[in-house]
Amino acid sequence: MSELRRDPIGGRWVIIETSHPDKPTDFDYEEGRFRSGTCPFCYGNEAMTPPEIDSFRELATSKNSPGWKVRVVPNKFPVLQVEGDLDRRGIGIYDLSNGIGAHEILIETPYHAKDIPDLSNNEVESFISMYCRRALDLVKDKRFKYIMIFKNYGPAAGASLEHPHTQVIALPMVPKNVMEEIKGAHNYFEYRERCLFCDIIRQELQEKERVVLENAYFLAFCPFVSRFPFEVWIIPKKHSSYFCHIPSEDIPFLASILKDLVTRVKKIFPGVSYNYIIHSSPINGDGSTEGYHWHIEFMPKLTRVAGFEWGSGFYVVPTPPELAAKYLREASA
Amino acid sequence: MSELRRDPIGGRWVIIETSHPDKPTDFDYEEGRFRSGTCPFCYGNEAMTPPEIDSFRELATSKNSPGWKVRVVPNKFPVLQVEGDLDRRGIGIYDLSNGIGAHEILIETPYHAKDIPDLSNNEVESFISMYCRRALDLVKDKRFKYIMIFKNYGPAAGASLEHPHTQVIALPMVPKNVMEEIKGAHNYFEYRERCLFCDIIRQELQEKERVVLENAYFLAFCPFVSRFPFEVWIIPKKHSSYFCHIPSEDIPFLASILKDLVTRVKKIFPGVSYNYIIHSSPINGDGSTEGYHWHIEFMPKLTRVAGFEWGSGFYVVPTPPELAAKYLREASA
Repeated sequence: MSELRRDPIGGRWVIIETSHPDKPTDFDYEEGRFRSGTCPFCYGNEAMTPPEIDSFRELATSKNSPGWKVRVVPNKFPVLQVEGDLDRRGIGIYDLSNGIGAHEILIETPYHAKDIPDLSNNEVESFISMYCRRALDLVKDKRFKYIMIFKNYGPAAGASLEHPHTQVIALPMVPKNVMEEIKGAHNYFEYRERCLFCDIIRQELQEKERVVLENAYFLAFCPFVSRFPFEVWIIPKKHSSYFCHIPSEDIPFLASILKDLVTRVKKIFPGVSYNYIIHSSPINGDGSTEGYHWHIEFMPKLTRVAGFEWGSGFYVVPTPPELAAKYLREASA
Repeated sequence: MSELRRDPIGGRWVIIETSHPDKPTDFDYEEGRFRSGTCPFCYGNEAMTPPEIDSFRELATSKNSPGWKVRVVPNKFPVLQVEGDLDRRGIGIYDLSNGIGAHEILIETPYHAKDIPDLSNNEVESFISMYCRRALDLVKDKRFKYIMIFKNYGPAAGASLEHPHTQVIALPMVPKNVMEEIKGAHNYFEYRERCLFCDIIRQELQEKERVVLENAYFLAFCPFVSRFPFEVWIIPKKHSSYFCHIPSEDIPFLASILKDLVTRVKKIFPGVSYNYIIHSSPINGDGSTEGYHWHIEFMPKLTRVAGFEWGSGFYVVPTPPELAAKYLREASA
């Protein structure tokens, strides 16, 4: 089992892999590349993964066999495990607990080489619906305080397998950066009695220069304070704290704006790696998340984050969001 | 001039390059490599850099000519500039100011291919003395609130030039991560009337399993809550808030432990890229930095930081610090 450790200085939690640690020779630091060998996520290779948790599949096909469109399996190398107790404890000034949580892989498509721009709108809707279904299931486990849904695409973005997939991690505590966002949004709400994110949407729609795309329910824009060049946020126009509460009639609109965005980014930057993360309110908590507004943060991997950024949390962005938005608007999807 | 922008959600400041922005074709995202062409940092190429700010050089040699051992020049592509006013202002809910600050390059050695393990102890002492001299000079400008000294070595660590160099950035505000560290340490000090870092040193010296190296004045250890595999901190054993107050008789001890550490890391991971950052107290402030203890955070670049880490501030560390310390102790320097 891994350990969750809490930094006594800033209060950050990290996951330390204590039971199956990497040796020095396990690091492939000179070259970014995918793990080699047969792809365990491909259609027909269902036996290569741990047993299926959920799937969308054709009628009369059975679990762990072909016939699926979207498939969810436990991560074969989970950073957290479901069984056991947290057992929070101290060693001198340090705090730690057992690595309890869930770590699932959501295989977005049976096709190894098809990323979001190559899928139909329907196919994108399917895997987004599955994001939602997994979140709604994991929220039932009262030990979990946060569900993180994120995609690493391409080796430079940290993906070890090429086949498009999303990771779903349920955590027994709220991550530091999320907690800060929640607090910041809450402070604004207390002061103004308005949602900060709703105010951001209002200002972006008025100024227009950072808007990339919009449809009836969603806005895609380059944030005024981007941390990375060509960073884009997709946010529901109507206030909502939890991603998993998305109305099913809104999902096609989210699928279409996500597909359009990724297509434009890949048109400007062929073969680029990227990450996106769904930011949503903590779950099973004290309900003090008033004023938080779920959204997706999308970041193409164009620069290497250096020591300065890690050490300071102070980012240098070589392309202003106003200009990035212009390039993205002009790239035809 | 660049812009400093403040995130309305979490209060993070970022530097946005608004005057010389990168176009999509400026990003070299498919391959990490050094900028090509003649090295402006090499001995004899002094005319290729902006005019020298400071140097250690042989007697009777003149500025901007050969004869130097360590040389400091303004960054040719500075992220912040010295001239002008901050002019802090708002646009609707957003805050920004002009990109005022200093951005210097400290060329550690005249030799293009010599990194720390290849230098003599004396040579390492020289560039550390220069770190100190630059900090003591920049602190005199009352507009600056923080001096950040950091090294990016190797393309994977974000260095664009191969010739070993360190960057010195003076900022008009305290970076978010630093502020959090200061607050955390201050809270501990208020509660216990002891420095948190001094307590960490005491516990590490007692438990020994995360200690890599030590000498009379410094300790090198893998922190209990590492964020990266093989992360190592070098910390003065005696309490001190400001790096630039280091007694000159301690500098040889810092040089020797730094050289020993980098040598061991490169022995285990040949050709690895790395970053280190000097964490020190803010300057020209209100003096509420009681309980902060300066130190160096050293991180070899072994893994790619993925979306999960950026989004959450929640890191997954594949090698426990106890094991990393063991490998580093066993690697003969």
